[in-house]
Amino acid sequence: MRMEDMILVSIDDHMIEPPDMYRNHVPAKWLDEAPRVERNEQGLDQWVFQGEKTTTHFGLSATVGWPQTEWGYNAGTYSELRPGCFDVHQRVRDMDANGVLASMCFPTMAGWNARTFTESRDKDVALVMLQAYNDWAIDEWCGTYPGRFIPLAIVPMWDVELAVKEVHRVARKGCRSISFLETPHVQGFPSFLSGHWDPMLQALCDENMVLSLHIGAGFDVIKKPAEAPIDHLMVLACQISAITAQDLLFGPTLRRFPDLKVALSEGGIGWIPFYFDRVDRHVENQAWLHDGDDFGGKLPSEVFRDHILACYITDPSGLRLRDRIGVDIIAWECDYPHTDTTWPRSPEFAWDELQQAGCADDEIHKITWRNATRFFGWDPFKHTPREQATVGALRSLATDVDTTRMTRQEWRERNEAAGIGVF
Amino acid sequence: MRMEDMILVSIDDHMIEPPDMYRNHVPAKWLDEAPRVERNEQGLDQWVFQGEKTTTHFGLSATVGWPQTEWGYNAGTYSELRPGCFDVHQRVRDMDANGVLASMCFPTMAGWNARTFTESRDKDVALVMLQAYNDWAIDEWCGTYPGRFIPLAIVPMWDVELAVKEVHRVARKGCRSISFLETPHVQGFPSFLSGHWDPMLQALCDENMVLSLHIGAGFDVIKKPAEAPIDHLMVLACQISAITAQDLLFGPTLRRFPDLKVALSEGGIGWIPFYFDRVDRHVENQAWLHDGDDFGGKLPSEVFRDHILACYITDPSGLRLRDRIGVDIIAWECDYPHTDTTWPRSPEFAWDELQQAGCADDEIHKITWRNATRFFGWDPFKHTPREQATVGALRSLATDVDTTRMTRQEWRERNEAAGIGVF
Repeated sequence: MRMEDMILVSIDDHMIEPPDMYRNHVPAKWLDEAPRVERNEQGLDQWVFQGEKTTTHFGLSATVGWPQTEWGYNAGTYSELRPGCFDVHQRVRDMDANGVLASMCFPTMAGWNARTFTESRDKDVALVMLQAYNDWAIDEWCGTYPGRFIPLAIVPMWDVELAVKEVHRVARKGCRSISFLETPHVQGFPSFLSGHWDPMLQALCDENMVLSLHIGAGFDVIKKPAEAPIDHLMVLACQISAITAQDLLFGPTLRRFPDLKVALSEGGIGWIPFYFDRVDRHVENQAWLHDGDDFGGKLPSEVFRDHILACYITDPSGLRLRDRIGVDIIAWECDYPHTDTTWPRSPEFAWDELQQAGCADDEIHKITWRNATRFFGWDPFKHTPREQATVGALRSLATDVDTTRMTRQEWRERNEAAGIGVF
Repeated sequence: MRMEDMILVSIDDHMIEPPDMYRNHVPAKWLDEAPRVERNEQGLDQWVFQGEKTTTHFGLSATVGWPQTEWGYNAGTYSELRPGCFDVHQRVRDMDANGVLASMCFPTMAGWNARTFTESRDKDVALVMLQAYNDWAIDEWCGTYPGRFIPLAIVPMWDVELAVKEVHRVARKGCRSISFLETPHVQGFPSFLSGHWDPMLQALCDENMVLSLHIGAGFDVIKKPAEAPIDHLMVLACQISAITAQDLLFGPTLRRFPDLKVALSEGGIGWIPFYFDRVDRHVENQAWLHDGDDFGGKLPSEVFRDHILACYITDPSGLRLRDRIGVDIIAWECDYPHTDTTWPRSPEFAWDELQQAGCADDEIHKITWRNATRFFGWDPFKHTPREQATVGALRSLATDVDTTRMTRQEWRERNEAAGIGVF
């Protein structure tokens, strides 16, 4: 097996939604109330919904086209971005250039957990827009290129019965997962342990869909010092996946829903062997707390493996201990267009790391596509024959794609001259 | 090398302080105000200071003599405990029976960070008692058996200048470390990043003493769900060591004090390779945040290794990756008399784990005594010739020690008949 023979399915990428995304998906009578992009007094593009500027912006979320020295806190204009951030045609070409067969994309303007809609004033309007969002994501973004995207939706967190209905609605459209808040209790919602979310979890089980819990939204679960630099958030985000796993594993959630599948998106894998050592010894050592039936006669690590997909971008130590994690629950991610992405050299990066960890060919296939596609119930070869799905085959289609990183100013001049990113 | 040839120095054990501990160390005029043990209405022994019952009790902290089925939340009476918990003569015999040459003991009644004194009303009295506590710990507990204990003190957290003075005072008595709060900001104190603690950290550097940050006291740094079971605290406590390391490494602390030494007591080691992967990639990838000089031209993992001792009780995955942690910063712990202790079979337990990880003889020596004694600046062979310091030699002195676990009731009958644990 050579690097070119790998098949890459990434279950963590992101869309920077284009300003016209609502146009085709909101009924005419609501169209004036749809979220819209305004250029603010600093000349930066920002989403506005119900009179409020959304808290999410795309400065640090769309750095893929820029050299590191251009990164920073400030949002920009669409025209400063590499077009693959917001244009699905360009996105697919960027995937080809990076040898990536398929991608699951998380929201930006909506917040990873529909926060933009959940925090809005008028929930009737919010529901219309949330559904339009999902229709755009599933029918338009994913639907334009069958076989290239795993559809992911968001749900109205403000009403669990509405969330149940939305799960069933998007399932009928072929959606395979929802993005949800890893630690709901830190944003004022009931926790996973409370039972409040059970009807929604049941709906996911009924539809064989995955609960995707992306790192970041639950960061406030850590009470950080007032003086903590932004590094804290970036470095410690994955520690929260361990906390999330603990909530699910030692709360009743995973035991109550034997069919529930949870992806710890961008959670990393290197913390898992340590966590397994700890939980397995814990239930043995603290016998006064656990009578052996709490985990159905299994070890906590086995229950974890029955339910959870562990997702990583780069994780050399974790890969070295893949036998202790379970090579069937590890899945690779690309994270385009965020700062952590390995684009456009994901094949080289992933291959080197897998080789250094001594992975056999079948382990590489499991990690780069088999585990993810099995877990998400998504056939990678339905639209693309296997021989056309490899890194080598896809890259051969995209030899003309320019992957050069350029300054914001260079992108802006170039894009605006071509009418790209101008809405 | 055989198991019997190991030398074991444990830098994490605990004292259940005896009720008469203040008698010889408090000036006569304050003696009536010293903390005292009262038997409460449930017949349980509890410390009282300035009219307040202390929040610390010893139910789950002194389980070493009991079978697992006897563990639980309730405190007991001194007479229910294995006498090695509170009697230094019996403690040394229990150490012999377990092949342990030397031990560093953390407080119980005082709280790991002098919380009992810090939260008391009259701080003048509190300082007298805190100093008496340290005098008892250093002069009496450790002093009775030279060469068997590494002295550890506590400091008055309510006044950093008093803390500085106490560091210098206990240093003159041979103390090698202080026990401090891993995340001061979660108990309402200034954080490590604030600079508030800098005079105390400088005093530690000046005295070549170690800052020992034991897991547990900072647990509130995680905002856990209201429904979380006690398992959360037990399982996740080590995640907090990663958060603590982040505060020290990305705050100015370690950079400001090149000589500062920090032991992450009971922090575990298995999380470190993942953390190193993450921080080292972070500073490379987020070049806009780090100009390369932030860590003095080193990687964050190298700065961590320059300052931190990583301490574990059992950690099979972490030991497998000792090359990625650094075999010179790993130190073993016994945790007598807590639930996690491996007493009285620590040699067997540690040896098996070290062998399964494939450790060479010199790596075993580093992990079981060399790293700890170097880090704490404490000569293990000053009072005990090396050939008498081994597991085999020590155990041969204690063949008559009965290590049988017994119920609380059995201990009580047996101890009270012998006048043990009756004050």
